[in-house]
Amino acid sequence: MGSQARVGIVGASGYGGIQLVRLLTEHPNVDLVFLGGEGSAGKAMSEIYPHLHHRGMGDIELVNLEEIAQRAEIVFLALPNGLAVKMAPELVEKGCKVLDLSADYRFSDLSTYTQWYRTTHPRPEVAEQAVYGLPELYRDRISSAQLIGCPGCYPTASLLALAPLLKQGLIQPESAIIDAKSGTSGGGRQGKLNLLHAEAEGTLGAYGVARHRHTPEIEQICSRLAGNEIMVQFTPHLVPMTRGILSTVYATLRDPGLVTEDLLTIFNVFYRHAPWVQILPSGVYPQTKWAWGTNLCYIGIEVDQRTGRVVVMSAIDNLMKGQAGQAVQCLNLMMGWPEDLGLPKLSFYP
Amino acid sequence: MGSQARVGIVGASGYGGIQLVRLLTEHPNVDLVFLGGEGSAGKAMSEIYPHLHHRGMGDIELVNLEEIAQRAEIVFLALPNGLAVKMAPELVEKGCKVLDLSADYRFSDLSTYTQWYRTTHPRPEVAEQAVYGLPELYRDRISSAQLIGCPGCYPTASLLALAPLLKQGLIQPESAIIDAKSGTSGGGRQGKLNLLHAEAEGTLGAYGVARHRHTPEIEQICSRLAGNEIMVQFTPHLVPMTRGILSTVYATLRDPGLVTEDLLTIFNVFYRHAPWVQILPSGVYPQTKWAWGTNLCYIGIEVDQRTGRVVVMSAIDNLMKGQAGQAVQCLNLMMGWPEDLGLPKLSFYP
Amino acid sequence: MGSQARVGIVGASGYGGIQLVRLLTEHPNVDLVFLGGEGSAGKAMSEIYPHLHHRGMGDIELVNLEEIAQRAEIVFLALPNGLAVKMAPELVEKGCKVLDLSADYRFSDLSTYTQWYRTTHPRPEVAEQAVYGLPELYRDRISSAQLIGCPGCYPTASLLALAPLLKQGLIQPESAIIDAKSGTSGGGRQGKLNLLHAEAEGTLGAYGVARHRHTPEIEQICSRLAGNEIMVQFTPHLVPMTRGILSTVYATLRDPGLVTEDLLTIFNVFYRHAPWVQILPSGVYPQTKWAWGTNLCYIGIEVDQRTGRVVVMSAIDNLMKGQAGQAVQCLNLMMGWPEDLGLPKLSFYP
Amino acid sequence: MGSQARVGIVGASGYGGIQLVRLLTEHPNVDLVFLGGEGSAGKAMSEIYPHLHHRGMGDIELVNLEEIAQRAEIVFLALPNGLAVKMAPELVEKGCKVLDLSADYRFSDLSTYTQWYRTTHPRPEVAEQAVYGLPELYRDRISSAQLIGCPGCYPTASLLALAPLLKQGLIQPESAIIDAKSGTSGGGRQGKLNLLHAEAEGTLGAYGVARHRHTPEIEQICSRLAGNEIMVQFTPHLVPMTRGILSTVYATLRDPGLVTEDLLTIFNVFYRHAPWVQILPSGVYPQTKWAWGTNLCYIGIEVDQRTGRVVVMSAIDNLMKGQAGQAVQCLNLMMGWPEDLGLPKLSFYP
Repeated sequence: MGSQARVGIVGASGYGGIQLVRLLTEHPNVDLVFLGGEGSAGKAMSEIYPHLHHRGMGDIELVNLEEIAQRAEIVFLALPNGLAVKMAPELVEKGCKVLDLSADYRFSDLSTYTQWYRTTHPRPEVAEQAVYGLPELYRDRISSAQLIGCPGCYPTASLLALAPLLKQGLIQPESAIIDAKSGTSGGGRQGKLNLLHAEAEGTLGAYGVARHRHTPEIEQICSRLAGNEIMVQFTPHLVPMTRGILSTVYATLRDPGLVTEDLLTIFNVFYRHAPWVQILPSGVYPQTKWAWGTNLCYIGIEVDQRTGRVVVMSAIDNLMKGQAGQAVQCLNLMMGWPEDLGLPKLSFYP
Repeated sequence: MGSQARVGIVGASGYGGIQLVRLLTEHPNVDLVFLGGEGSAGKAMSEIYPHLHHRGMGDIELVNLEEIAQRAEIVFLALPNGLAVKMAPELVEKGCKVLDLSADYRFSDLSTYTQWYRTTHPRPEVAEQAVYGLPELYRDRISSAQLIGCPGCYPTASLLALAPLLKQGLIQPESAIIDAKSGTSGGGRQGKLNLLHAEAEGTLGAYGVARHRHTPEIEQICSRLAGNEIMVQFTPHLVPMTRGILSTVYATLRDPGLVTEDLLTIFNVFYRHAPWVQILPSGVYPQTKWAWGTNLCYIGIEVDQRTGRVVVMSAIDNLMKGQAGQAVQCLNLMMGWPEDLGLPKLSFYP
Repeated sequence: MGSQARVGIVGASGYGGIQLVRLLTEHPNVDLVFLGGEGSAGKAMSEIYPHLHHRGMGDIELVNLEEIAQRAEIVFLALPNGLAVKMAPELVEKGCKVLDLSADYRFSDLSTYTQWYRTTHPRPEVAEQAVYGLPELYRDRISSAQLIGCPGCYPTASLLALAPLLKQGLIQPESAIIDAKSGTSGGGRQGKLNLLHAEAEGTLGAYGVARHRHTPEIEQICSRLAGNEIMVQFTPHLVPMTRGILSTVYATLRDPGLVTEDLLTIFNVFYRHAPWVQILPSGVYPQTKWAWGTNLCYIGIEVDQRTGRVVVMSAIDNLMKGQAGQAVQCLNLMMGWPEDLGLPKLSFYP
Repeated sequence: MGSQARVGIVGASGYGGIQLVRLLTEHPNVDLVFLGGEGSAGKAMSEIYPHLHHRGMGDIELVNLEEIAQRAEIVFLALPNGLAVKMAPELVEKGCKVLDLSADYRFSDLSTYTQWYRTTHPRPEVAEQAVYGLPELYRDRISSAQLIGCPGCYPTASLLALAPLLKQGLIQPESAIIDAKSGTSGGGRQGKLNLLHAEAEGTLGAYGVARHRHTPEIEQICSRLAGNEIMVQFTPHLVPMTRGILSTVYATLRDPGLVTEDLLTIFNVFYRHAPWVQILPSGVYPQTKWAWGTNLCYIGIEVDQRTGRVVVMSAIDNLMKGQAGQAVQCLNLMMGWPEDLGLPKLSFYP
């Protein structure tokens, strides 16, 4: 076999799927050999996404794990929560590397998963091998993993903002409040009334307050970083834009003498090997549009010396670093390729 | 004096001005007798706002305080900060009731005003008579005032969310964090690059972190409510929508046994005489669009029993309850009219 | 009979319905006595539209024509096409005045209706009594009608732009090209993928080219105005905004010597008794936002002397003058009330 | 000289400039050696566009033609109209290839330019050598040109829709009506009130009716294609989106027997060597978002057999195929590189 890795996507017709199709089509080391779906099986990709008309993507095929495993050595699962638990174990056993974009393999504590997602793992021993696919924290483990549970969009933005603070013990852990704002593509490609343009345009509101499922995912990683179990306050909001997440994170500093420049230094050091994290200069705060279409996470920091708190703002493209781009970043690590291979670095602007 | 109150507006061409023009034109007890401006003087209102073509608003006149005081008994000042300090004292002395929409008369502690706005009051004794125009807190004082400093848009949304909590001593005062989000009309009608559609559409970011001028305004009133000096954390964001402010307020409860229903009851009692505050039922969180074009403030509440915090979300139209509508509400009180006279109650939707 | 007219709405939960609820609640001569629906029956209006929480609208009731006719003397039908043909005849026979917002009663030539909508009229003799509810053209007939087929949104904007030209024989009739652009609320409150915010934001496209159902409706009235059967070119587009329709109409002038001022005069005379049509001055072209929330139609005109064509631009709020507002305007005429009673005249801006 | 072409940009801080910076930075055959500006000189690119922070673009330098010509062999001018006439001749004489993005070198008939733009050419003999940079029509001439006048955004979309029809004599030439719609970035990065987000969001309107400067540019090329002088009707509209142009073109067919499939075939043949034009299948109409961030022009076609007209819809990204992308496409041709080198082919979606 040649130098190209053979890759398949299950769930190619959703927003996660179409991002993967785009990224993997342009990835220099990848040969995209399988596009799978359920309801969309039998349709040409260009029927669902007519802008692909000129790219001759071929048809979406009905999912058959046996055949996928024969054709592809790597499989991305871009499905609703609760479906990967049935597919991933079989694919792993047949020798595929699997990157799951759902919540199914994000939790090392499976009881937390079951409690918040009301799904059980038929093969818990497989779930326990899965690695949380946040490369900035788990680069080494991802490199040698066979099964990746790719992070949620909110957790990605929130954890990149919090990780240096928790890891270095700079904040009172339970003081962390995450006020997160997402574009509407985060709701997926489904005909829900609250996601209609006429409902979502020109308005803003919170949802899932004190009970959004990304809360335990954030807490799991924060607890690992802090070294003990901690809880965070997490509130998501829906913003009238298609893409982007901004997390505004508040936390009380343990040492009130720290100033903005101190934290900028700490963040820069913490992320010195992370090609996809950009710490902004003092006084510059990230706009979600800067990350649009790229795998970047922009981070701005401000210490409020009056109140003794730090405010960290992180901006990502929810479908890229928040989903498909990060999965490809994990793929690069798993294959020993450069971490930034095939991923867009420079946003369009405006 | 006839049955109609004679009202003038100085600064009719800005976004605050045009809201006042709209509201006062349709107010049953008002006769709009003067539209004043500087750069726009001599222009017809319908040149600046062509949708007014059919309403024959007449021309904007150059500001002449002598003449304004002769023609109007009530004057709204809708000018940039720092100009009202020169005009209001003279108008007050000539017997006019004055409602100032700028920051000039919002501060009882003038040194705070001078420190944050870098302007001094030439007539501090006039400033000391001014009443902070938030009717839900200062209904009685407004009723008998001659000079009103109308609140800022962010403080209005934030204070209505915090007032019952602070007044009843339900939260640890310094735990209050206000994550506020505003539409772009809050930036006013000026050709700034960051307010361009091409810059502001499809993006979201924070600004003025730890140093926005609405911080001391919020703290002044919070301190009065709490009975001692307190500081709050306040972060404004710019959202890609024209109108609306959402304040998401976080605070730690003193009594961790309180549940959402307890706080809903307390808020409903606190605002039982407030026609413009609407407490939403449990589990319902406000959308800014619900308040669009009305003077309403919608408030949703959620207690997070895991963390011991309360999350209060308040939504207003930044140009109505956050600016011109609230000023008209104050006018109603000053004139002894019903508090809801001439103000829209029912939003368009969607 | 008391002083208030008793009015019912069937189909209160859709976008047409909620506009009617808003307008009729605030209409001084109307008592809203019935809100009916199918799927939404049993729900409180404020469950579907939480911004109505403070207005105590009561519940949506299951539709029962017998009971509606007992309680209401006037009934608005705001239903998908094809349902009113079953309800309207019975309501008319029971003595109700009926205003239908669907396409069912817009066609005097029922075969055209059947051909384009694939529905037949079980009671064609009722359909033949129906009056096309465009007051600017059929004021007298509407005043004495018992059954109104309210115009579509695109036809309203397009016909108001074309009527003076065709009626006065100023253009070559078959030269008329209507390039129309609509906001997304025109698609209704239904979970269709192309109406999702993430799909509709930041983009623009045509649809139904050469086959949209509003074509025969426009042609029917144009033919009456011209005095002979004519065809028009009509292309609708979906624009990333919630409300508003702009029709840009092109036609070749019969007399190439006419200038813009001539046509402005002709339009002003034609609409001199029409309180809801506003002809803009020379050089001013309408913005849809100017009509937002009002029942106004703004019209701008430009003659291109190089090409011998006239360009007429008309802007409406598709849910107001394009739907519910116009229905209330018809109600006013049917009841002998002032044509502008209870309808908003002044948009919010910006 | 190495294998990389040395390229400079004058006017790097505007929207055209930043697109060029993005494209040329990622172009495999280009070495970007000079970023020039006037007001922005001395600033780092990342001060103006903070999302470039991680790319170390260096500073914008004051424009000095002597020095530019020494450092760069190719110069892009991305300046307001009327400035290139002063710079381009000197750069050409010093041996640079020049691509001008303004209107200055688009006209072969200089009197037309002077009449519509009120600027004269100090060096008309240079202007006469300039080639109109629309590769789909003038590929050969561009390949050997030293000075390119890059087309306007509206002309690009409109001419690609009209060219096959005029070239093949399929339509009555003077029947052509172009109803064009543009996103707000077309207005440039300048603080004009009508371009403010609060003014431009949620609304739609025409401007420059019968007098927009792109009219003579379109007519010049249409006349060449038709073989005689013709006039077209052109109406631009501003749409509430950042990027994108849709041109909806109407024309009367000479042979009313032609059907949609005939024209699809003709267009596919006409553009068979054009990598950046995509003819959509029957019944599919372009969305501007499909072209977002790419150099593609999507074209949909519908013949209306009832009226004998053809409707052609073309969608581009106004800043890419409509401006900077097309200039790079021209560069590729001038340098003998593949026409699609270094240009994005696959949009993000949604």
